[in-house]
Amino acid sequence: MKNLFICGFALCTVLAEARVVNVADHGIVPGKDATYALNRLIESVQNEPDVTLSFPKGQYDFHPENALGMHRAVANHDNGLKRMAFPLFNHKNITIDGGGSTFMFHGHMIPFTIESVQGITLKNFSIDWIRSFHDEMLIVESNAKDKSVVVECDPSVYPYTIKGGKILFHRYKQDDPIGSNMVFDPETRAPIYNTRLYTINGKNAKITPISKTTFKIEKGFKNAPPVGSILVTYGNHPTSRLCPAIHVTNSKDLKIKNVTVYEAGGMGLIVERTDNITLDGMKVTSTKERIVSTRADATHFIGCKGTIKVENCLFEHMLDDAINVHGAYVPVTEYLGNNEFLCDISHFQQWGLTFGEPGDKIAILSRETILPFYETTVKNIKVLNEHRFVLTVTDVPANLSKGPLSVENLSWYPDLVFRKNIVRENRARSILVTTKGKVLIEDNYLSSQMHGILIEGDNNKWYESGAVQDVTIRNNEFVNIGYAVSERYPLLASPLFTANQRMGEGRYHRNIDFVDNTIKSFNGLLVKACSVKGLNISGNKMVFSTDYPKADEGEAIVLEYCDDVTIKKNKAAGFDNPLEVSKTADTSNVKIERNPGFKSQTDRKLQAALN
Amino acid sequence: MKNLFICGFALCTVLAEARVVNVADHGIVPGKDATYALNRLIESVQNEPDVTLSFPKGQYDFHPENALGMHRAVANHDNGLKRMAFPLFNHKNITIDGGGSTFMFHGHMIPFTIESVQGITLKNFSIDWIRSFHDEMLIVESNAKDKSVVVECDPSVYPYTIKGGKILFHRYKQDDPIGSNMVFDPETRAPIYNTRLYTINGKNAKITPISKTTFKIEKGFKNAPPVGSILVTYGNHPTSRLCPAIHVTNSKDLKIKNVTVYEAGGMGLIVERTDNITLDGMKVTSTKERIVSTRADATHFIGCKGTIKVENCLFEHMLDDAINVHGAYVPVTEYLGNNEFLCDISHFQQWGLTFGEPGDKIAILSRETILPFYETTVKNIKVLNEHRFVLTVTDVPANLSKGPLSVENLSWYPDLVFRKNIVRENRARSILVTTKGKVLIEDNYLSSQMHGILIEGDNNKWYESGAVQDVTIRNNEFVNIGYAVSERYPLLASPLFTANQRMGEGRYHRNIDFVDNTIKSFNGLLVKACSVKGLNISGNKMVFSTDYPKADEGEAIVLEYCDDVTIKKNKAAGFDNPLEVSKTADTSNVKIERNPGFKSQTDRKLQAALN
Repeated sequence: MKNLFICGFALCTVLAEARVVNVADHGIVPGKDATYALNRLIESVQNEPDVTLSFPKGQYDFHPENALGMHRAVANHDNGLKRMAFPLFNHKNITIDGGGSTFMFHGHMIPFTIESVQGITLKNFSIDWIRSFHDEMLIVESNAKDKSVVVECDPSVYPYTIKGGKILFHRYKQDDPIGSNMVFDPETRAPIYNTRLYTINGKNAKITPISKTTFKIEKGFKNAPPVGSILVTYGNHPTSRLCPAIHVTNSKDLKIKNVTVYEAGGMGLIVERTDNITLDGMKVTSTKERIVSTRADATHFIGCKGTIKVENCLFEHMLDDAINVHGAYVPVTEYLGNNEFLCDISHFQQWGLTFGEPGDKIAILSRETILPFYETTVKNIKVLNEHRFVLTVTDVPANLSKGPLSVENLSWYPDLVFRKNIVRENRARSILVTTKGKVLIEDNYLSSQMHGILIEGDNNKWYESGAVQDVTIRNNEFVNIGYAVSERYPLLASPLFTANQRMGEGRYHRNIDFVDNTIKSFNGLLVKACSVKGLNISGNKMVFSTDYPKADEGEAIVLEYCDDVTIKKNKAAGFDNPLEVSKTADTSNVKIERNPGFKSQTDRKLQAALN
Repeated sequence: MKNLFICGFALCTVLAEARVVNVADHGIVPGKDATYALNRLIESVQNEPDVTLSFPKGQYDFHPENALGMHRAVANHDNGLKRMAFPLFNHKNITIDGGGSTFMFHGHMIPFTIESVQGITLKNFSIDWIRSFHDEMLIVESNAKDKSVVVECDPSVYPYTIKGGKILFHRYKQDDPIGSNMVFDPETRAPIYNTRLYTINGKNAKITPISKTTFKIEKGFKNAPPVGSILVTYGNHPTSRLCPAIHVTNSKDLKIKNVTVYEAGGMGLIVERTDNITLDGMKVTSTKERIVSTRADATHFIGCKGTIKVENCLFEHMLDDAINVHGAYVPVTEYLGNNEFLCDISHFQQWGLTFGEPGDKIAILSRETILPFYETTVKNIKVLNEHRFVLTVTDVPANLSKGPLSVENLSWYPDLVFRKNIVRENRARSILVTTKGKVLIEDNYLSSQMHGILIEGDNNKWYESGAVQDVTIRNNEFVNIGYAVSERYPLLASPLFTANQRMGEGRYHRNIDFVDNTIKSFNGLLVKACSVKGLNISGNKMVFSTDYPKADEGEAIVLEYCDDVTIKKNKAAGFDNPLEVSKTADTSNVKIERNPGFKSQTDRKLQAALN
C-alpha cells in the first residue's frame, strides 16, 4: 500500500511537470544556422503535451533557406509565403525558455508562428534581425532654402546603392526606394515635434553620393530636417509588413514573459482569435545602435476573447501604436436567401481572417450607422477565398433591411487589463481599444506622438469593430501627448465615419470612465468624445508642461452627440487661461462640477449652452 | 427469377453508367457569373464516383470574385493565390461535358484545377477570356530611318493608358508595361521571319498618343516592323504566367477530347505527376479577332508516367512550344549523412514541385556531366518550403562523390505518342521531349519558328531532365522549320551545357530514329545531334521550299560526340548544292549510305573524316 502510494505520487509528479528538453542536445547551438534543427525539434514534440524547450544562454542564428515555408494570411500584415523559425502548430502546454538568449534572424522570416496551440509560454529571450527593416540616416547638413540635406548612412549597416539620382535600400533580396518615412529627434529619441513638416516624397527626391557613407538628398522634402535629426525610411506596401516577430492565431492561454523585441518587419506581436493572453515584462524597444524598434505596432489583437492582460511592459520607438485591441466589421455583399450572407472582408490587411466558427454569436448591423440591429448565431462558414466567405446563420430578422449590411462577431471580444506599462517615443498612439469586453487601463506612463488612448471603431476604412461598453482609465500619467500636433488628445473616443455614413439613433460607445489621471500637457487638451453614452471624466489633474512649444489648441474637453456625461473634480494648473469644455447641441445630460482651473463650470454662457 | 434477373441487370446498368447531372438544374446557366454555383456543384460530387456534369450548349461566364481561392504552385508558371472555376480535388471518374459550350473567363483565374483526381474526362467545350493576356497592335506607319512606328490598337479591346511617354496595358487590375514582345505577320499568321530584328525595349520606348485608337512608338525598336505586321506584347515575370487554362497534378487517367483553348495567361495545359493522359482533338488556336492564342506552351508535362497520347490535335499561334515532356533535375545542396540529401529546386518555375514520393526510384548524378551514377529508392521526402526538401533514400554508394550532385526521379517518366497533329505558326518549337520512356512521333505536320523537335535536357538553366532512350520520329512533315533563323533544325538532339559543365564518359541520349519524314526546307538543315548513342537518320526526303528567303546555313547533318550513327536512303532535291554531313573527331561508328542529293557519301575527303 505504501509502495503503491509512492508510485502514485511519483506518477503525479511526472504528469504535472513538463519535460525539459535542452535544445543543445538536438544540435541547436550558437554559431550556425539553427533553423532546420529547431524546426525538426519543434515538430517532434508536437504530440507531447507539457514540454519545455530550454536554450542555454547565447546567440542563436536563424536563416530562411531551410526554414518551414508556407502561405500565411497574417492580420494587419502583408500575406504571402512565410518562412518560420519556431513553427508551433497544435502543440499543448509548451514553453520556450530562451534562458536570456538572443534569437537573431537573417532574412524574411516570422520568428514565431503559433497556431491552434493550447497553452504556450514564451520567456527569457530577445528577438532581433541582423539587418533592420527600416533605414536610419543622420542629417549632417541642412539647407532650409533649397530644402536639401546631406545625410550620413553607413552602407555596411543599411545597405544601399545610388544610381541615376535614385537610392535603393537593400533588405534581404528586396530593394526598397524611399517609401514611408519620418524624422526622429535624437534628444528625445522620439519622432521630432510636428514631424509631418519634414516628410520626403521619395519619388521626387534626387540623391547624389558624396562619400562612401554620405549622400545629398534634394527636391523631395517638404522642409529640410534639422542637423542632428534622423531620417527613417521604411518601404512601401505590399512588401513593408511581411515579418512580425510573433504571430499567434486560433490559440488559447498564451503567455509572454520577459521577451524583448528589438526589431520586426511588422508588429512585435500580432494575435488573432486567441483566448486568454498574458504579457508580463515584454519589451519592444530599439537596440543601442538604432533609434527605431518595430516597423509597426508593438502589440495588436484582433478577434480575441478571454482576458488580455498586459503588465509591466515597455513599448517604445515603434513606428506605430503600442497596443490595438479590436474585432472586425465585415461587409455583406449580398443576402443569398436561406439565412446565407455572401461576405467580403474589406480591408486588405484582414484578408484571410477567420471571421467566426459555428456557434459564435454575431450581430447584423447597418453599414451606414454601424449600429447593430439583430443578433444571431453562426451555423456555418464556407470560405471561398482570402476575401470572401458565405456565412450561414440560424435565423435572420423577418424584414431584413435592404440597405448595406455588415456583420461582427460578438463571441470573440476580450477583456483588457493594461497596467503598469510604459509607452513612449513612438510614432502614433499609445493605446487603441475597441472591444465590448471589460477594459481596465491603469497605472501606466503614456507619452505618444498622437492620441494617448483612441477608442474608435469604423466600418469604412480599417473596419475595426467593437463599440466599447465598459472602459475604466485611471491613475495613468499622460506626458506630452500629441507632439505630432495633428492628433493630440489623452483620450479620444469616437467612431470614425465617412461621407456615406451617419450617426444612428443610439450612441455607439458606452460607459467610459476617465478618472484620476495625471496629464502633463503642452496643449491643454484632455478628452474628445463623440457618440458616447455614459462618460465620466473626474479627478484628473492637468499640469502644464514646457517640454514642447506651448500650444492653445481649443477646448480641453469636446463633447459631440454624447449622453450622460459627468465632468467633476478635475484640476488644471499652469495654463495661461482656464481650460474650456464645449459640447454640440445634440449632447444631453451633462453634469459639470467643481473643476478648478477649468472655465466651464463658472461660465454661465457656456453652462447654459451645456444644458 | 425473371424479375430478379431484370433487377440484377438494371443494377449493373446503373453501376456501369455515370450519373449525368444537368448543370442547369444547379443554377449554372448562361448570362450570369456561374462560378459560385459551379464551385458548389463540383464540391457536392467530390465523393461520388462516375458522374458527368453536362452543360447545355451556351456561353457560361466565370468571374474571380466568388471563386475558390488558394495558394498554388503551378509548374512552369508563376505561383501564387489562384482563383478556380472548376476546382476538381480527389474526384473519381468524373466527366465535364461542355456540349459545345464556351467557357468565358473574366479575370485572373485558372479555369480547371485537377488535383489527385482518378479518372477525368474533359470534352466538348472551349476556353476563352474576355480580355487577352497579351496585346496586339497593328503597324500602320513605319519609319525605317528613325525606327519609329504608328500603331492602331483599340483600347476597348486592349485597354491601356499613356502617360508621360509610357504606356500601361490594363489586364484585370494588373498594369503591364511593354514587356516581352514579338512581331507577327498577318499573311502567314505566324511570327514574322527573323522576328528578333524587330524587338522593342519597353523601357526605352517613348509613346505618344495620336488618336483614340492610334499612338506612335519611338526609340525602343531594334528595327521598325513593316506596315501591316502586328506587334504583340505580353508582360513580364513574375506576373505574366499566372493563369494556365488547365492545371493537372498528382492525378491518373486524364482525357481531353474536343476541347479548344483560345487564350490563357500561361499554358493551355500543364500537367504534373500524372499517370496516363490522352488528348484527342484538342485545339489551341486563336480567335478570329486575335492573331495569338496562349501566352506560353500549348501543352506541357513534367514528371508524368504511363502514356501521354496526343492525337488529332491542332496547336497554333501560341507564344511558346506545342508540347514539352520532361522530368526535373534537382540539385543537392548538401549531403546530410544518414542517406539524407538537402535538395534545392533551382528553377523558379519548378518551385513547389512534388519531386517524388516514397517508393520512387531515383538516380543520383553528377551535376557536371549530368550522367547518373547510382540508382536508389525514395524512403521519405520532407518538404521544408517551396524551394527545399530533404530526401531520404534507402541506400547511397559507398564513396559518395563530393562534387556537385543532382537527383532525378526515374519512376515518373512517361511514354509519349504524338500522332496526326498539326503544329504551326507559333513562337518557339513544335515539340520538346526528354523522357526515358518510349517516344513515338508520327504522321504530324510541324511548322514552327524555331526547331521542329528539340531533345535537350539540362541541369543548369531549365533543369529539365530525361535523357531519352527510345525515340521514333517517322512519317512527319516538317514545313519551313526555323524561320526564327536562330534555331532551325527539324531535329536537334543535344543536352545543354554551361561553362562549368562538361561531357561525361558516356553519351547522354540514346536510340533516336528519325526516319521517313518529309522536310520542306528553305535552309537545307536536317538534324543536329550531340552526345547521342544510336542515331538513325534514314529514308527522309528533303524538298527545297521557296516560302522564305533561301538560306545556306551550313551542314544539313551535324554530329558531335555521337556514337553508332546510321545515315541512309535520305533524299534531297531542289537545293543549289548537295547537302553536307559533318562530324567532330569524337564521333564514332558512323554509317553513311545511299543519300541522293547529299554530298557526304560521295565526298571521299569527308568520308575519310567521317570514319
